[in-house]
Amino acid sequence: MTHIDDILNPASIAIVGASDNPTRIGGRPLAMLLSGGFEGEIYPVNPTRSTVQGVKAWPSLADLPKPPDFVLVAVPAPMVNGVLRQAVLGKARTALVFSSGFAEDGDEGAARQAEMAKIAAEGGLRLLGPNCIGCFNLHNKFYPSFSATLDLAPVLPGATSIISQSGAIGTHLYGMAAKRGIKIGRLITTGNEADIHVGEVVHMLARDDKTEVILAYAEAIRDGAMLIEALDLARANRKPVIVVKSGRSAIGAQAIASHTASLAGEDETFDAVLAHHGAWRADSLEEMVDLAAAARPKIYPAGKRLGIITISGGAGIMMTDCAETYGLDVAEMPKAAQSQIKSAMPFASPRNPIDVSAQIMNDLSTLPEAVATMLDAGRYDVLAGFWATAPSNPTIGTKLRDTLTSALASRPPVLFPQVFMTDQDARNDYECAGFPTYYDTNHAVRAIAAMCHFGNAFSRPPVPKPLPISVRIPHRSAIGERDAKEILAAAGLPVSLDVLINTPADATAAVRANAPAAMKIASPDILHKSDIGGVALSILENEAAGTFERIMKSAALHAPDAQLDGVLVSPMARDGVDLILGGRNDPIFGPMILVGLGGIFAEVLKDTVLRPAPVDPATAHDMINSLRGCDLLRGARGSQPVDLDSLADSISLFSRIFAGLCDQFSSVEINPLRAFPDGCIALDAAFVRHDGITRQ
Amino acid sequence: MTHIDDILNPASIAIVGASDNPTRIGGRPLAMLLSGGFEGEIYPVNPTRSTVQGVKAWPSLADLPKPPDFVLVAVPAPMVNGVLRQAVLGKARTALVFSSGFAEDGDEGAARQAEMAKIAAEGGLRLLGPNCIGCFNLHNKFYPSFSATLDLAPVLPGATSIISQSGAIGTHLYGMAAKRGIKIGRLITTGNEADIHVGEVVHMLARDDKTEVILAYAEAIRDGAMLIEALDLARANRKPVIVVKSGRSAIGAQAIASHTASLAGEDETFDAVLAHHGAWRADSLEEMVDLAAAARPKIYPAGKRLGIITISGGAGIMMTDCAETYGLDVAEMPKAAQSQIKSAMPFASPRNPIDVSAQIMNDLSTLPEAVATMLDAGRYDVLAGFWATAPSNPTIGTKLRDTLTSALASRPPVLFPQVFMTDQDARNDYECAGFPTYYDTNHAVRAIAAMCHFGNAFSRPPVPKPLPISVRIPHRSAIGERDAKEILAAAGLPVSLDVLINTPADATAAVRANAPAAMKIASPDILHKSDIGGVALSILENEAAGTFERIMKSAALHAPDAQLDGVLVSPMARDGVDLILGGRNDPIFGPMILVGLGGIFAEVLKDTVLRPAPVDPATAHDMINSLRGCDLLRGARGSQPVDLDSLADSISLFSRIFAGLCDQFSSVEINPLRAFPDGCIALDAAFVRHDGITRQ
Repeated sequence: MTHIDDILNPASIAIVGASDNPTRIGGRPLAMLLSGGFEGEIYPVNPTRSTVQGVKAWPSLADLPKPPDFVLVAVPAPMVNGVLRQAVLGKARTALVFSSGFAEDGDEGAARQAEMAKIAAEGGLRLLGPNCIGCFNLHNKFYPSFSATLDLAPVLPGATSIISQSGAIGTHLYGMAAKRGIKIGRLITTGNEADIHVGEVVHMLARDDKTEVILAYAEAIRDGAMLIEALDLARANRKPVIVVKSGRSAIGAQAIASHTASLAGEDETFDAVLAHHGAWRADSLEEMVDLAAAARPKIYPAGKRLGIITISGGAGIMMTDCAETYGLDVAEMPKAAQSQIKSAMPFASPRNPIDVSAQIMNDLSTLPEAVATMLDAGRYDVLAGFWATAPSNPTIGTKLRDTLTSALASRPPVLFPQVFMTDQDARNDYECAGFPTYYDTNHAVRAIAAMCHFGNAFSRPPVPKPLPISVRIPHRSAIGERDAKEILAAAGLPVSLDVLINTPADATAAVRANAPAAMKIASPDILHKSDIGGVALSILENEAAGTFERIMKSAALHAPDAQLDGVLVSPMARDGVDLILGGRNDPIFGPMILVGLGGIFAEVLKDTVLRPAPVDPATAHDMINSLRGCDLLRGARGSQPVDLDSLADSISLFSRIFAGLCDQFSSVEINPLRAFPDGCIALDAAFVRHDGITRQ
Repeated sequence: MTHIDDILNPASIAIVGASDNPTRIGGRPLAMLLSGGFEGEIYPVNPTRSTVQGVKAWPSLADLPKPPDFVLVAVPAPMVNGVLRQAVLGKARTALVFSSGFAEDGDEGAARQAEMAKIAAEGGLRLLGPNCIGCFNLHNKFYPSFSATLDLAPVLPGATSIISQSGAIGTHLYGMAAKRGIKIGRLITTGNEADIHVGEVVHMLARDDKTEVILAYAEAIRDGAMLIEALDLARANRKPVIVVKSGRSAIGAQAIASHTASLAGEDETFDAVLAHHGAWRADSLEEMVDLAAAARPKIYPAGKRLGIITISGGAGIMMTDCAETYGLDVAEMPKAAQSQIKSAMPFASPRNPIDVSAQIMNDLSTLPEAVATMLDAGRYDVLAGFWATAPSNPTIGTKLRDTLTSALASRPPVLFPQVFMTDQDARNDYECAGFPTYYDTNHAVRAIAAMCHFGNAFSRPPVPKPLPISVRIPHRSAIGERDAKEILAAAGLPVSLDVLINTPADATAAVRANAPAAMKIASPDILHKSDIGGVALSILENEAAGTFERIMKSAALHAPDAQLDGVLVSPMARDGVDLILGGRNDPIFGPMILVGLGGIFAEVLKDTVLRPAPVDPATAHDMINSLRGCDLLRGARGSQPVDLDSLADSISLFSRIFAGLCDQFSSVEINPLRAFPDGCIALDAAFVRHDGITRQ
C-alpha cells in the first residue's frame, strides 16, 4: 500500500520541462526546491540547455546518471505520455503532471488521460495529476509545485495536512490556514485524478505519523469503499477528518459536471457516509481552518456539556443560541456551585453562562477557582471563554493567559477555546499555550461542536456491521407486491396478508371475509398504484365486485403494457403512523438505507434520513431520532407513541435484507410501513431491478 | 425629536468623578478626550482636587462657570441620582451613566433606576445607561467611554455606525470592524436603557447625515413601534440596518392557550418584523462586519442574478452552492455570450460560474471584455470574483485591481465583491477602489445576498398597510366556535355552516339532512376539541344519536368545568388542503399573523410563517410561498392545485379582521382553513381573550 512518503519523500527528483525563469511553471518548483533547501538530488531535464537556474541539466530522463524516484512533468500535453513511459523504464516511483489538456479538454484529452492511466498502472508508477498544481511537503522542504502560495505565507511544518482535488482551493486554503497561524505539514492536490484520488490520499494521511488533522476538499469521490476505509482508519487513529465537498446544490452539481466531467454522487449520500464514519462535513474553507485550530491541542471532549465563562452577558447568550443549534448542552450549574462562585465573586451571574463581568479584569486571582468549580461541580466536558477586547492590552492579555493556564494545570486536559480581539502575536501565544482562539463567538461554538463530534466518534467502539441476510428470490421475470412481501416475510419482517382474486365473484367473497377491505391492483409493472386509480380503501361487500372492475379497467387504461395479475384484497389496517423504508444502491458508496415519515412527509417535505446499509438497531434509533417529524412517532397530539424498539428492529432487518439483495435490485421500498404502539407492519413493498424496472 | 448630535456633539462635557489616573474608569475618558483633541469645553468634577490630569477641576456641577451640555457620571450608584438632579438644574441636554448597581442588581438597584428614569423624563434630560461603557463619536473626537478599545484599533471616521445594548459586544464589534478596515463613525452603547434604547438610537442614525450603514446589537426591544418606524425611515433613506439579536433559543412562554401563541415565540416575531421592514438579521458579529464591508460602495443590486467569474472551478461550485441556499440565481449565460467568451478565451468554461482558469493571469487584457459580456449579455445584477492567492503577488494584485476597475469604468455602478488571499494593505486598496473583499467564498456570497435583500427593500414602494376591519362582537361572556365563525362570516370570510343540536333526536334529524356529517362539541371553553373526544367524522344517520351522547359524555368527563352548549353538526367538508391562520398580539410589536399548513405540519414540523398584521394579498402570497410544504398547495402528488389568489385574499382579510380585534382578543385562530381548487373555507375558529381564556 502506497505510503505518503513514497510520494512526498523521494531521494531524487527530475523536473522535465525545467525552465531557467523561476516565475514560469517549469521554473518555479526548481527555484523553490533550491531556495527551500531540499536535500535530495535534483535533475532538471531540458534538451536545449546545459544548466537550468545554475543546476546541471540533462537532455532527457534516459540521460540521467541515476533514475529518479520522482518525475515532475511540465511539458505540453501531447508530450506527457512519452515522458511517463521513460519514467516507467527508469522505475520511478511517482510522477506528477502539471500539464493540462486531458480529461478536462474534450475527447482527445480524455483519450490521452486514459492512456496515461494505463501507462501508470502497468508500469507500477503512482501518478498525481494531470492538470495539477502540485504538492508541498514542509517536513523535508519538498515543493514540486508551481503555486506562488509559499511566497505569501511561509510557515513552520506542523501536524495539519491538506488534500484538495482543486489546486486553487488547496492553495487558497493553505493561505487561509497559514494566515491564521495553523502549521501545515503537507499540501497535496490531485487535479484530474488519473490515478491517485482524494480518498486514497486521506488513506495515506490516516496512516501518516506526521499528520494529526486532515483537511480534505473534494468535488467527486472516485472510490467509495476506499474513502470509507480511510475514514475508519483516521477515526481509529484519532485523527479528525474535516471535509468540504462542493456540489451541494443542483446548479452546483451541474457546474461540477462541466468542471471535471466526473460524477458527483448524491449529496445526501455523502453526508450520510461522512456522519456515519465519524468525519465532519464543513460548509466553508474558513470552517475547516477554524476546526484545524480547535484540533491543535488534540483534546476531543467526551460529552456535550458546555460551560461558558464570559465578561459579557450578551456574548454568553449568543454562544448559548449557537450551542443550541449544534446540539450542545449549556446545562445550568448546580445550585451549590452557583453559591460557591457567587461568594467568591459577588458581581458574577453564576448560572451558565457564568458572567464574571469586566470586573474580573481588576483581579484575576478568583478565576482559577471559578474554572475549577465549573469543571468539578458543573462537570462540563468543554469550556469556552469570552473576554471581548480586554486582552488587547498586552499586560492583561498575558496575565489572563497565565491565569487560565494555571487554572488547568495538574488536571486532565480540557478543551477551552477563547474568544477575544487581539493582534496575531497575542493570539499565537494563546494557541501555543493550548487555547484555540476566535474573534467570533459562533466560530468558537461551531469548532467546539465539531470537536465534540470527534470525541464521540473516536470513543465509539467500531461497531461491526450486521451481516446482510440472504433471501431466495423466486425465478420470475418480475417481482410484484405479493412476491415482495413474501420475500420480506420469509426474512422475518411483519407484512400484511393479501388474497389475490381475479373475478368479481371472488372479489365479493374476499371482501366479505375481510370487510372493510383494501383493494389494490396486483401488477409487477405498476409501482405507484394510487396514481393510476389502482387502490380502493374501506370497501364493503356490496361494493367489491364493482370496485374490482373499476380497478382493472383503470389499470388497463393507464398502464396498457403492464402485466395485470388481478387485485389484492386485505383487511383495512388499523390506524398508525406511516413510514417509508427504502434501500438504494449508490454507485459510489454501495447500499444505503433511507427512513422517512410516510407520504407527503417524505415526498413534499423531504423529511428522510439516509445511512450506509446495513444498520444495527442502535443506528436505526439514531435515524428515527433524526427525523424532523419524529414527534409523530412519540405520540404527538395525545395519540399513543409507537413501539420504537420494534420499529428500529424492523429498520435494521430491512437494511440487512436489502444489503443481501442489492446486487440484484437497485432499490427496494416498503411504503408504507405502518407503526403501532405494539409493533409495525409492511403494507406494501416494491422491488426495482438494476435496469430501473420491476420486470427482469 | 432627539438628534444624534444632541447626544454626541455637545459644546461642553462635565466628567463627574473624574480621576487623575488615566487607566481608571473616571480617568480614561478624560485622557481620551484630551489626547484625541476634542474641541469642546471639558470640566472635570472632583471635590478633592484642584486639577485632574492637568485640567482645572471643580468641586461639583453647581460650581461650573457654565452649565455643561453633556454630563458624564462615574460615581458610585447611590450618588448618581443626586448628580442627575444637578444636571437637570443646569439644563444639561444629555447624561451618560457608567455606574452599575441599578436594574441589574436587585430590587434596590431597580428602584434607583426607576427614580433615575423619572428624574430624566421630568427634567427633559436624555440619558444613556446606567451600567454603560459609553460612546465614541469619531467625527468630532468625542469619546465619553472607559473602553480601551480605541487603543487597540484607532480608525478614521466613516459612514458605519454601531449601536449596542451591551458594552462588551459593542466594543468587540468595533474591534472586529476596525481590524477589517471598516471605517466607523459612531459607537453608542445603551447599557440598562433607563431612557434611550437601541430602537431610538437606530431612529437617530436613520436620520443622521454622517451614517450610511447601521449595525445594531440588541437583547430586548423596549418599543416595537419605535423600532419599526426607525427601520422604515432607514429603508426610505437607503441605509442598510444589520441586526444581531441574541436570545434566539430562549423562547418566551406565553400564557395563551391557543396554538398560535405556542407556535410563534418572540424570536420568530422579531425575525418577521425585521424581514417585513427591510432590515437584515445577522447570526454573528462577523457577519455584521462582512456586510458592512459589502455596503461600503452603497450599491444595492436591483435583482438576484449573480454572475461569478473565477480562476477555480471548485470555488465557482462552492459559491454556487452557497448562492442557492440564499436564494440567489446563478443563471446560465446565454449561449451566444458563452461562444463570445470562449472565442476570446479558449481555455474558459463560460456557462456561469465563468471559469477563466489561472491562465487568465498570464494576460489580463481579455478580462474587461468578459466582464462586459457578463453584464450586457448575461444581465447579471451583481458579480463576484474568485482569484485564490494570485493577488498576493503585489504586481499581479495591482494589475488585477486596475483591470477590474477599468472593466467597470463608464458603466452604471455594479456591486462586485472579490475573494482572494492577500495582506491587509492590498485588501484595503481593493476596498478603496470600490471592491468589497473576502477570504472565504461563503462570506462573499452571504454579503451579496444581504445587499440584494437591501436592494429589494429599498426599491419597494412603501406599501400602505390595509386597514383593520371593525367587526361587532356579541355581548357574550365567551365566544364559541359558532360565534367566532359568525363574526368572521359577517366580515366576508367563507365559513362552514353548522346546526347546533341538544338532544339525540335532534342529532339524528340533523345528521339525516347532512350525512355523512361531522359532529363537534360546542363549547366556548374547549379549544382543542379532538383532544377530549369532542369530534366525530363521517357520521351516518343511524350513528348520530349514539355519537351525540358519546361526545357530550366525553366532554363532561374531560372538561368538567366547561360550558357545554350542545353539538355542532355539519356536512363533511370535501377534501382539500388544510391550513391554520392565527392572529397573535405580540406585547412588543402588536398584531401578528401566522399562516401554516394544517395539523401536524404546523404543530410537529413548525412549518409556519409570521408577519406583522394586517397584510395585503401580495404579502399573503409571499407568506404562502415561504412555507416549506407549499408544494402541497400547488398540487403535489397529482392533486389539483388550490386557488392561491382566493387563499391570499382570505389571509389578508383575516389579518385585517384580527387587527381590528386585537385590543379585545390576544389570539384568534382559524384551524383548519380548508383550501380547494375553487376557494377556501374556515371549518373551525377560536377566539381567545386577553386573559388567556375564551370566557371573558
